[in-house]
Parts: sequence; structure tokens; C-alpha cells
Amino acid sequence: MDLYESRNSGGSIIVVPRMGESQLFWTQGYLVLKGYFANYAKEALMLANELAESRGKNVVLEPSKEEVRSVFAVHESETVLGELAWSGAVDTIRCLLNDQVYIHQSRVNFKRSGGTGWGWHSDFETWHVEDGMPDMCCASLMIALTENTRENGALRVIPGSHNYYISCPGETPDENWESSLVDQVAGVPDRAAISGLVDLCGGDPVALELDAGDAVIFHCNLMHGSQENKTGTPRTNLFYAYNAEGNMLQGPFSGKKPRPQYAATRVFINEGI
Amino acid sequence: MDLYESRNSGGSIIVVPRMGESQLFWTQGYLVLKGYFANYAKEALMLANELAESRGKNVVLEPSKEEVRSVFAVHESETVLGELAWSGAVDTIRCLLNDQVYIHQSRVNFKRSGGTGWGWHSDFETWHVEDGMPDMCCASLMIALTENTRENGALRVIPGSHNYYISCPGETPDENWESSLVDQVAGVPDRAAISGLVDLCGGDPVALELDAGDAVIFHCNLMHGSQENKTGTPRTNLFYAYNAEGNMLQGPFSGKKPRPQYAATRVFINEGI
Repeated sequence: MDLYESRNSGGSIIVVPRMGESQLFWTQGYLVLKGYFANYAKEALMLANELAESRGKNVVLEPSKEEVRSVFAVHESETVLGELAWSGAVDTIRCLLNDQVYIHQSRVNFKRSGGTGWGWHSDFETWHVEDGMPDMCCASLMIALTENTRENGALRVIPGSHNYYISCPGETPDENWESSLVDQVAGVPDRAAISGLVDLCGGDPVALELDAGDAVIFHCNLMHGSQENKTGTPRTNLFYAYNAEGNMLQGPFSGKKPRPQYAATRVFINEGI
Repeated sequence: MDLYESRNSGGSIIVVPRMGESQLFWTQGYLVLKGYFANYAKEALMLANELAESRGKNVVLEPSKEEVRSVFAVHESETVLGELAWSGAVDTIRCLLNDQVYIHQSRVNFKRSGGTGWGWHSDFETWHVEDGMPDMCCASLMIALTENTRENGALRVIPGSHNYYISCPGETPDENWESSLVDQVAGVPDRAAISGLVDLCGGDPVALELDAGDAVIFHCNLMHGSQENKTGTPRTNLFYAYNAEGNMLQGPFSGKKPRPQYAATRVFINEGI
């Protein structure tokens, strides 16, 4: 029997069909690519840990200042961390955004045992206000370098939330990135807005439980966050954010100074260069 | 002021953003291209009327047998009707379907003064059951060759209905196309299903009022129909249906004989040939 029963002898029957990739992405705001990077996760994890040890200026520490929270601009690495930035998944992203793309930002988020999570936020909100990204023609690729579970702080998303923008309260402080990359305060929606958003989207948040090597393409305005890592082992994810070439950064809409190059690329980098 | 207010001094504010083309297509099931073919509509209308006069075997008459209802396979014409089949709009369709495409069917629908409409239906239902199209990786481009108004029988659609498949009642008759292209009986959802579908989609049907030269790209499973032409002048629309190359026709799922080539292409035709 095929999925769509070939006419029937009773009344009409409404069936919810299997969705294709584009339809899933635009309906949910994200798309899971199971096992897509399974052959690369182990090497990428080792290299990410090495970069974290370097403690360069692209490295952001945890509030405790003892452990590394994130390493930025990993797409500039001449290793598999640079190569993975231009995998076949980027063809899917180009198609979804209907444009050529360049890397707006890349990073590895380390969440060591006990590491804190992120509150609910839209990446686009920050990228618009603090980086001057005009429109929502941007998507991130997240590659799980370790298992992601509810217990270790898997990404949680509100499906369909990319269809709504939340204008957040708060003046953007000068050089906000110095603290916001550790613990975001400005650009965080209040609880009432999140509750309203969940109602509008008609469904509860979903935890994206993944195996190492799975990946997720998610819309820049998808509301997401994560909880702390309650397990004894790290949860490590690699991110590349691709912006459409027709959506190049302007001056930040906050009117403040642009963030540093490692957080928001203004020197154009794409595959062709 | 830009669309997304740059943080604010009060509480969070939820804004419904402007959608991009892909997001609109996958959310509504269709996309309007205003004025895209404005320079071609007049010539295409003249040529379509000439083809109708020919009364070839690709021509389907109205129930009265006096007037022409449709002319099929117009993409095979060595005129602007053939050229328009491979306009720049096809790049958008390739991108939406994430595949190369070929023409599954093309036609001009004439709706003369007093001409009858079409009941609610999904093209995919017929193309699946009667043509053996496996999946919903197919979209139509409709070019308005005359003005489309509520009064002259503009296309009516149920936004979001492409996300639901209605398995329709009824055995497919032998050589069903002989009558179904004039007045469809099998493959028509019952009233309760349409009412349930409108509830699921959360919004009333929309009449797509268009100027000559406007176009609409619509998903093959979008529920649509039209009413009779109550005006004194014709309403004429040109259609090209593009199927993904990864979604080639199999044997009809009804188990019946395939429809003729003019209604469902099985000889592969695409731009490259």
C-alpha cells in the first residue's frame, strides 16, 4: 500500500503526508540530517578540543574563567573544521535560502559537565541588532560532535517560532559581546513572550536529541535554548552560520559599534575565494 | 525604522515578519509573482486562442461541446507558449523542489463568459492515482493571460492545505480522463473533508485576484477550485506543471491504464534536450 491510498470506497479521509526537506525546514524552522557527518565527528571533536586549549582571542571562557565555553571562527582552521564548513549540506542551505551564501559566524560550543545552558533566544535578534543583518535570509548548520541528550543539555527549539520575531526589551550595552557571549542579558525575550510564542506555534518545545555526527540546519530566527549539562561528560557542538549574499551586514541596528570579526564576519569569505 | 525594532524600553513585542519566497511557498502552498510575465501575456493569449481554434486532439471541449475548455501540451508549441515554459521562474521552482524538473503537463484553461468552474481538488490526487506520480515534489506555474477576478472565476485556494492529503472516495473509471478533464467526479473530496481541511488550515479560502501577466507558483497538493465566469469576457490562464526528476511517474496507483501523453508526460522533456 502506498502512503496515499488510491481512492477508497467510503468517505474522504484526511492524511498528513510525509514532508520533504524544504517543507520540513519552512514548517518547523529546522531540519535534522541523521548521521550526515558520522565519519567526521571524532576528528572534529579532537581538533575542537585542541583549539580550545590554545586560549586565543577567539576563545570565550565560562563565567568561572576556568573552562572554555566557545571557540569562534573555526571555519578559518586549515583542518577538517575548515573543510566541514563547505560540505554538501551547504547546497541544501543555498537552496533553502535561494541564494549563494557566505559564513557569518562559526563556533564550537563546549558544554562541560556542569556547564550552563543558554536561555531562550533567536540568533537573528542579536545578528540584526548587534551585527546589522537586515533580513532573515540566514541559517545555521549545527553538527553534534558528541551525543546530545536531554540530560547533557541538548538544543531545545520551539517548532514554527521562526515565523515570529520578538523585539526584546533592553538597551544594547557598549561592547555587549564581552559579556553576552558568556551570559546573554540584552536580546532575551521575557517569559510572557515565550509563553505567547508557544501558543502561537501550537506546540511545546522539542529537545533535539542527537548522536555524534548528526546535524541540524536551523533558521536564524528559530527560538532556541539549552539547559545545563547534568552528566559527567561534555556535550560539544560545532556551528556554522550561513548568510545569503543578498543579505550582507549593514551597520548594527542598535547604533553601537560592530562586533569583532570573529563573532560577525564582515570580510567576505565564501567557497569561491 | 526598520521592520524589526532594535530592542525597546518596554516588554517583549511579538512581530510577524515579512516572509521570503521559499517561506511563503511552504507556509501558504503558493507564491504570487506580480507582473512577472506582463510583457508576454498579450502575445501568449493570442497564440492560446489560435491553438484553441485548431481543435486538435489536445483540445478539451466544454460540456456543451461548443466551446473550448482547455488546450493541453502547449509547452510543445514553437512559440512564446513553448518559451515561457522555461522562464526564470523555473529556477525558483527548481530551488523550491530542490531538484531538476521536467514538464509533467501544460495547458491553457479558457473560461468563457458563463464557463463553469472546477470543484475543490488537489492536482496531486489525480496525478498520484491516475498518473502514478509517487510524491508531492511537483509544482505548477499559472500565468494569468487575462485579469482574474472573483466575478470571472479566479482560482480559489485553501492556504496551508498542501500539508494534508485527502484520500477521495470512488473507483477510478476506465479512461476517466475522457470525462474528468471536462467535469471531475472521481478524486473530488466530499464537503465534510473540505470543511475539516479549512479548520485544520486555520483560515478561509482565498481568491487569487490577478492582473494579466501576474503568475502563481503553487504546490501540487494545494486544494484549489474556481467558480463560473459571471462576466461577459473570458478568463484565460496558462499552466505548466513541473515535476522533480527524482519523482518520475510510475504505473498509475489506481491500477488503470495511464492517461495520454498530452495529460501526463512520460516522454522526458526538459530544458537540456
